[in-house]
Amino acid sequence: MTTFKVAIAGFGGVGRATASLLLARRARYRDVYGADVRLVAVCGSRSGAVSAEGLEEANLAALADGLSGPAFIEESGADILIEAGPSDFRTGGPGLAYLQTSLSAGRDTIVISKGALVHSGRELRSLAEGSGAILKLSGAAAAALPTIDLMQHSLKGCEVLEVEGILNATTNYLLDAMTTRGIGFDEALREAQRGGFAEADPRNDTEGWDTACKLLLIANFGLGADLAMDDLAVEGIQSVTTERIETWRGQGLVPKLVGRLWRESGAIRAAVGIRTYLPDNPFANIRGKDKAIRIVTDAMGETLAIGSGKEPLATAGAALKDLEHILVAKAG
Amino acid sequence: MTTFKVAIAGFGGVGRATASLLLARRARYRDVYGADVRLVAVCGSRSGAVSAEGLEEANLAALADGLSGPAFIEESGADILIEAGPSDFRTGGPGLAYLQTSLSAGRDTIVISKGALVHSGRELRSLAEGSGAILKLSGAAAAALPTIDLMQHSLKGCEVLEVEGILNATTNYLLDAMTTRGIGFDEALREAQRGGFAEADPRNDTEGWDTACKLLLIANFGLGADLAMDDLAVEGIQSVTTERIETWRGQGLVPKLVGRLWRESGAIRAAVGIRTYLPDNPFANIRGKDKAIRIVTDAMGETLAIGSGKEPLATAGAALKDLEHILVAKAG
Repeated sequence: MTTFKVAIAGFGGVGRATASLLLARRARYRDVYGADVRLVAVCGSRSGAVSAEGLEEANLAALADGLSGPAFIEESGADILIEAGPSDFRTGGPGLAYLQTSLSAGRDTIVISKGALVHSGRELRSLAEGSGAILKLSGAAAAALPTIDLMQHSLKGCEVLEVEGILNATTNYLLDAMTTRGIGFDEALREAQRGGFAEADPRNDTEGWDTACKLLLIANFGLGADLAMDDLAVEGIQSVTTERIETWRGQGLVPKLVGRLWRESGAIRAAVGIRTYLPDNPFANIRGKDKAIRIVTDAMGETLAIGSGKEPLATAGAALKDLEHILVAKAG
Repeated sequence: MTTFKVAIAGFGGVGRATASLLLARRARYRDVYGADVRLVAVCGSRSGAVSAEGLEEANLAALADGLSGPAFIEESGADILIEAGPSDFRTGGPGLAYLQTSLSAGRDTIVISKGALVHSGRELRSLAEGSGAILKLSGAAAAALPTIDLMQHSLKGCEVLEVEGILNATTNYLLDAMTTRGIGFDEALREAQRGGFAEADPRNDTEGWDTACKLLLIANFGLGADLAMDDLAVEGIQSVTTERIETWRGQGLVPKLVGRLWRESGAIRAAVGIRTYLPDNPFANIRGKDKAIRIVTDAMGETLAIGSGKEPLATAGAALKDLEHILVAKAG
């Protein structure tokens, strides 16, 4: 029985869901991998909990002040870090310091927040290569929707020629409401905010940045590209008028905000913007909070995946899929 | 540089496409895995070709009589067998002897034809476990459509609660023609036969057996079930009348032949039959020769995949994905 000590940095909804799901799966890890998986540390921005023997669900209710930060994770003796903190792609956010420390130390690392990976992806990849740490990011690259997984496992050996994805639930929900019920952007947004489907400051979603972040991670970590945010043309949905929606409806077309990757002169290009689809195209029927990706390869044609998991559980599931891939590599 | 000697048994359209794609990817295998992959033997039912140094495309045009059978593969010194022969689930077909010999000898084995796996799956699994051979079957379990892959890799850690799949292209094509153009089963079948989308004896497809075979492989090899064909309720499309199609159309429903797996009293149950879908359900829009699978899990909700590769290249791609998974396991 090999012991794997896991720490979780970032303890909001997703971090907590990940902790609970991990604790619930300990028997599975023992049975399938002969692995004694212990949750040795968790922390939010100011408080945390630690136990070399492994935290239990009851220890997670009340965190102690001051137990936080990369040094706290370091001292916990964790072998594996799961980073689930707030995301800011313009600065790397609080996740960046955790990831730098963790990957430098050779600690296998599972990333859920996108910011640091978008901001400093090349540096983090090279830290991982240098130390031999495994770096996984399913939770950051559209979570329960398989994206990088699909390319690197199910389509292994094929050249990916083109990718198209509905990667942001908020914009999909808003366009869906505008199209099916004929309401304007502002009304749809207020409604989504009341229902908890859009943030108080929705610009990260509505202006296309969240889609762009996921697209960039898919390109850089899934296809080995080296794109920065400035390389992407990013269009959002904030200026879509009811008139445009009406025109599309008249033409029998359904608008979606999509991220696209394609090859041009040997390089991978990327853009985020609105595309319209005929009603029998699967993309036209991706409703509300669902996500979808279409991958075109040389040998295996088109593969389309649609994901509709409930958050935060689905993202926790994606991060712990990454954990099992690490267990396979290490305990296998 | 590690040498991997590959043999292909069964040399119809899919076997030939697999050989050509493998030869075209040799540089990739060297670069990515440090693997010198050689095609050392190929054979159909009566003739074949062999070369310890590795066959080239030019050697595959004319096969020599008498070079065939499990002993021929054995003598070729192959490390890995790809089995792509004709499929017969009632007898195991010619593939069965190849697979028994190969797995007994500890040879990693990639299966494309379904028959032997459906007929003697339990025996073949236990031969592989006994000898330590890797047994892969993406090509048999819906080929380019990721099925077992999705469950075992992208949804790893989750419990699969339910599976639903459009797994047979011929019946999907026929129902599609009957529904969208109002023609009867017999006319649709004749048209499909003329276009090469249905076999001269179409019963394996139209009576649901092909769907049942794939479903059984997904259950047994993807979910660890131990189902035999007799455990499945199998309904086909041969008795679907234009009246039933008209009734569904009047109700706004689209019929599809689907295989379903679900859990009941701790066991996995399976059935093949017609289900109907509303037009905005992605399953309603799976056209012609495409395939689809919907997988419901405890933590990650619903994941749906749609595949539309061109045959025989897409199936060759699926088999060679299996080959790369073996290279990962063996060449690190």
